[in-house]
Amino acid sequence: MGISELQEALRRFAAERDWEQFHTPKNLATSLSIEAAEVLEHFQWLTDEQSRNLRPEVREQVGHEIADVFLYLLQLADQLQIDPLKAAEEKLALNAAKYPVEKAKGSSKKYTEL
Amino acid sequence: MGISELQEALRRFAAERDWEQFHTPKNLATSLSIEAAEVLEHFQWLTDEQSRNLRPEVREQVGHEIADVFLYLLQLADQLQIDPLKAAEEKLALNAAKYPVEKAKGSSKKYTEL
Amino acid sequence: MGISELQEALRRFAAERDWEQFHTPKNLATSLSIEAAEVLEHFQWLTDEQSRNLRPEVREQVGHEIADVFLYLLQLADQLQIDPLKAAEEKLALNAAKYPVEKAKGSSKKYTEL
Amino acid sequence: MGISELQEALRRFAAERDWEQFHTPKNLATSLSIEAAEVLEHFQWLTDEQSRNLRPEVREQVGHEIADVFLYLLQLADQLQIDPLKAAEEKLALNAAKYPVEKAKGSSKKYTEL
Repeated sequence: MGISELQEALRRFAAERDWEQFHTPKNLATSLSIEAAEVLEHFQWLTDEQSRNLRPEVREQVGHEIADVFLYLLQLADQLQIDPLKAAEEKLALNAAKYPVEKAKGSSKKYTEL
Repeated sequence: MGISELQEALRRFAAERDWEQFHTPKNLATSLSIEAAEVLEHFQWLTDEQSRNLRPEVREQVGHEIADVFLYLLQLADQLQIDPLKAAEEKLALNAAKYPVEKAKGSSKKYTEL
Repeated sequence: MGISELQEALRRFAAERDWEQFHTPKNLATSLSIEAAEVLEHFQWLTDEQSRNLRPEVREQVGHEIADVFLYLLQLADQLQIDPLKAAEEKLALNAAKYPVEKAKGSSKKYTEL
Repeated sequence: MGISELQEALRRFAAERDWEQFHTPKNLATSLSIEAAEVLEHFQWLTDEQSRNLRPEVREQVGHEIADVFLYLLQLADQLQIDPLKAAEEKLALNAAKYPVEKAKGSSKKYTEL
């Protein structure tokens, strides 16, 4: 499935369960944040090095949590009629302007401090 | 751009700025969570009804934050070699099994309590 | 126990388990965020009205999660040698200046938009 | 001020601004999570070592964010009539039972995996 097919499947999934009443943009944004924290939980006590070499069963669990974030992201974008791919491409262009290579190279500073 | 093209562009973006050193899976998961909270911030004091009718300038800002979440999601998935579309499709199937229509209809309970 | 006694007990708790190695400020800030999301999870699908009338067993679980947030907050503040009560009192004064009654009354706008 | 005085001051602060309407437990839990992410943002790209040695101006900003988390925590606890100190002390005792020294020593595993 592509993004549109996933969004269509999610719409059907919610409609069949009569869940549209719960899926306000506010609640979906809340769920997005909760699921993102569940991704992060798997990395909580790992070193950076360990996070690059997840055990297979942890990697699989992280995959499920990433999927949950993605599914809520698609539902929120769908409700707000935002095209996630187009929004991402535009944001990447904005980021390139905020972080020009010659200034940002090797630095983790925020663009406001470069 | 599709998902693979975005991931390729993000890889180039990080490489040009020598940012791979910062982009450990742990740090990307941290960023994912921070950006998801920035999405949520726009809904913090809205009623559900207001969240369905965002002012155009708020909707645009939310679009940028959704894009940030998406860009970090794509980078994290890329580093862990997880296909986000495939992971989402599989998770949706798991959710369908966890929340059968006849049990979940009209309920916001967690599957463990259905 | 008061705040200082709790911080002392937490220091002993970590030392006995040889956990100081994991308790970097970065990791404690990560844990704070994860635990705050666990508080939020209990409210995810509730209406505002329902959130004012939690079932007793949910209220108890929320109490445990609030405690987790508090315990990480105390550990993080301890490591950074920040006095949480003093910091809170100062922030409250700053907020009073940012949100003067006559401007902020009945409004949920951010101070930058008042 | 102690915790009760802070809670009393926060109650007055909200009442004077007619903000009780916004301060549902659900919204306060949302704010708690957003503010915790703002604490975390300061540590986003730091190494563990750097996080132990914050620059003075960063440490000050982190202090303000920690204060925001604490203020929302106190308001949420107040609304739910949960005593944060008592809840923290009880949770610490629960954690001691979950993580006995002889099993947990030097390990960052979750208690379910010890």
